[in-house]
Amino acid sequence: MNWKKDLEKIPSRTRAKLLKYIYMNDTICAVSTGNASAAVAIVRMSGPQAVDILNRVVLHARAWQPRVQIFCSLFDGKDVLDKALVTYFQAPHSFTGEDVVELAIHGSPYIKGRLLELLCAYGARPARRGEFSQRAFLHGKMDLVEAQAVCDLIASGNQAAHRLAMNTLDGKLSNRLTQLKTTLAELLAQIEVRLDDVDEEMAPLGEAFITQQIQSVLSHIKALAQTFSVGRLIKDGLKVALVGVPNSGKSSLLNALVGFDRAIVSDQSGTTRDTVEETLDVNGQKIILTDTAGIRDHAVDVAEQEGMRRTVRAMEKADVIVWVTDGSLGVSAAEQNLWQQIKEQHKRTLIVRNKIDQTVVKLDLPADAQGMTVLDVSCKSGQGVQELKETLVKDMDAAESVDGVLISNLRHYEALLRAQTDLEEALLQVNAGGEFLAEHIRKALFYLQDLLGEVTPDDVLGIIFSKFCMGK
Amino acid sequence: MNWKKDLEKIPSRTRAKLLKYIYMNDTICAVSTGNASAAVAIVRMSGPQAVDILNRVVLHARAWQPRVQIFCSLFDGKDVLDKALVTYFQAPHSFTGEDVVELAIHGSPYIKGRLLELLCAYGARPARRGEFSQRAFLHGKMDLVEAQAVCDLIASGNQAAHRLAMNTLDGKLSNRLTQLKTTLAELLAQIEVRLDDVDEEMAPLGEAFITQQIQSVLSHIKALAQTFSVGRLIKDGLKVALVGVPNSGKSSLLNALVGFDRAIVSDQSGTTRDTVEETLDVNGQKIILTDTAGIRDHAVDVAEQEGMRRTVRAMEKADVIVWVTDGSLGVSAAEQNLWQQIKEQHKRTLIVRNKIDQTVVKLDLPADAQGMTVLDVSCKSGQGVQELKETLVKDMDAAESVDGVLISNLRHYEALLRAQTDLEEALLQVNAGGEFLAEHIRKALFYLQDLLGEVTPDDVLGIIFSKFCMGK
Repeated sequence: MNWKKDLEKIPSRTRAKLLKYIYMNDTICAVSTGNASAAVAIVRMSGPQAVDILNRVVLHARAWQPRVQIFCSLFDGKDVLDKALVTYFQAPHSFTGEDVVELAIHGSPYIKGRLLELLCAYGARPARRGEFSQRAFLHGKMDLVEAQAVCDLIASGNQAAHRLAMNTLDGKLSNRLTQLKTTLAELLAQIEVRLDDVDEEMAPLGEAFITQQIQSVLSHIKALAQTFSVGRLIKDGLKVALVGVPNSGKSSLLNALVGFDRAIVSDQSGTTRDTVEETLDVNGQKIILTDTAGIRDHAVDVAEQEGMRRTVRAMEKADVIVWVTDGSLGVSAAEQNLWQQIKEQHKRTLIVRNKIDQTVVKLDLPADAQGMTVLDVSCKSGQGVQELKETLVKDMDAAESVDGVLISNLRHYEALLRAQTDLEEALLQVNAGGEFLAEHIRKALFYLQDLLGEVTPDDVLGIIFSKFCMGK
Repeated sequence: MNWKKDLEKIPSRTRAKLLKYIYMNDTICAVSTGNASAAVAIVRMSGPQAVDILNRVVLHARAWQPRVQIFCSLFDGKDVLDKALVTYFQAPHSFTGEDVVELAIHGSPYIKGRLLELLCAYGARPARRGEFSQRAFLHGKMDLVEAQAVCDLIASGNQAAHRLAMNTLDGKLSNRLTQLKTTLAELLAQIEVRLDDVDEEMAPLGEAFITQQIQSVLSHIKALAQTFSVGRLIKDGLKVALVGVPNSGKSSLLNALVGFDRAIVSDQSGTTRDTVEETLDVNGQKIILTDTAGIRDHAVDVAEQEGMRRTVRAMEKADVIVWVTDGSLGVSAAEQNLWQQIKEQHKRTLIVRNKIDQTVVKLDLPADAQGMTVLDVSCKSGQGVQELKETLVKDMDAAESVDGVLISNLRHYEALLRAQTDLEEALLQVNAGGEFLAEHIRKALFYLQDLLGEVTPDDVLGIIFSKFCMGK
């Protein structure tokens, strides 16, 4: 084919853009409502041929009015495949910015599969994961931060994670980042224009002004980056490792913690098969409890080594360690050993003195545990259980957002840290001025633009969107 | 409360209708797209308060234009719960015939759950299974036959079951039943008016005319009822029991049958734990293969009894028995025994002579198996496998429909059989005439009306609709 040969003569960069253009000209289709059989399913098409393909499925061309739902038959050859509610969204007034057609069909496995086959036979192709969002992004309907928030919103299973995603989707984070970007870009322009001003005709920028500008951006970036420690927990859930020697009442505590909310608890065997995870919801926050109770099933001598190995692994993965001790007994040699292991993790640790209903509590915690949070709990009466739950989510509940925004995405966090480092370097160069100062500001600006997807390379975008869900 | 006391004074029948009226005035809501997390979910509301409740969720009243999708924010208090595409369908131009609101939201578990909570807080209540369809039926938007077809359509997993449901939904069965009903009703009216005509002023109906009318309806009903034997198989799948003594090559045959279509095969442990079911699709027809291979795992002496018990159970549930014999060997004593059991089932039976690649086939099938369908198969070369598949679905492929309609629902079948019995009785009474004749025609008419849901009691309707899926 000649045009392919011609294509090779074009510089590779232009060729990539051309191919992307051709690629974007495809019409894509997918089921947006999941794979399960249900009363209703939505099949979505996006791209320039969406209406043409729709007309072939309904057997004759119509004047589709944008956003008006039309009840019509979809045909498979001469047979009616289904009767559907069809809506047309005209470019650019659609989710993707392209012509979009949505077909609300009966959610049978056969109809869904066959309709996709027909759409593809008429010129569409199956969408990749996140491809609708990717097109929305490429057509400027949303920036990368907002697109990722859509993905987080769909995954949100509790109130706090939902609010986090919603605030980001609302553009709060994007607006903040855009403001910071603008401040930096204006400062950079003023510095650069003076670098080119070899005749020194312009008045120099005051060092105090430059310092103040950089510091104002830097303090915002620092504040945003700091929210990640809690934002991450809110999005993914707080991982809590319950540790303790056998018979400390760990299992009863687990039951007491999940008991009241049993309806929203799910048993999930851990990835390593030796731990059991239970998820619970406290004040709209997600807690993932990891129990290492399996160690009791082993012979005593093997159990000591193997049990400790598993406990350490659980503690390494956890955000908080809850050390469960039997409050009616003293701290044993095995517990002293465990305590050393806990300390080595350098993690947030809560000490639970269990079974306080049984007898007077002996106060012989290890000396270096003084001053740590100690909670008295009785799984029998339920005393202290609610307090333990609320202590666990205290930081998440009290999360200090920056105007309602928390960072919860590792990519965002890393970009902010990089921008922060360069701005700190820039501050050191204010005095010297010149190209070094400009270069650091330029790099910080680049990281903010990358966050918003403005300078992100196509292959990185591809990876980001491939983590989205199907049909979005 | 006084009105409740007043209510008790009302005759119970009127009271029931009043309560039903009050009940129907509720506004119901449900997720129509299933429970799984997905890009998009549809929440549907139906009832007189649908628009009022919608206005509360979007925080202020709007002039909703019917069938136009509006993009707007849904509020949870002051916070945005989600941004959704909202469509209003004005009564009676909706699926249920009532005011309907559909909200296309992001398919997160949290958003779905919380939105339903809010709708209920504002006056809606959770819909029961099939309640939208039930309302559509009660408002005369569809008859009972069509409503059940919607349910079958959603469950359809293959082409044949889909076509079956679609033809019924298309009104083909309803139209046919309505025609028959009209013919009977007109005949009955003519007979009844003459029963009242004590002065015998009207010309009597000719016996030939009455017989011809009844017979025309009867022949249609018989033809419809006859389609059930195949319609049932198309809807639910053909249950095939593979039986044979150990080492007859049953497992290889099972693998050869499902092998090519492995992608659409699902392993499903049987209800009784001792059989494994595999589903496959042949020419768009569903086949459920039941394998009883588990018997080999038992000790030999126990196995003989237990194995036979399981085999008999599998044969009892099956629509077709496939007897797998080793074509390279003669029929053993154990196989003679099995053959007796197969014959006792009086079911459609296919005989597979397996392993024909190994040696010359010995033709010593039991004498009373002469004339039965015998297929030569080699699982190794694949010879005969496709032929076996097509032989299995032959009847389903060649299903003789009545104008594209097949009966696949046990309730329909039973009603048709009852109508048939009464019409046959009526034929015997044509000669005698009078009230006996009228009574049998009246009963046959009643069964046809019951089929269409015209005279079906509310509690029966409740049971029928409770088998529908949620949100439909």
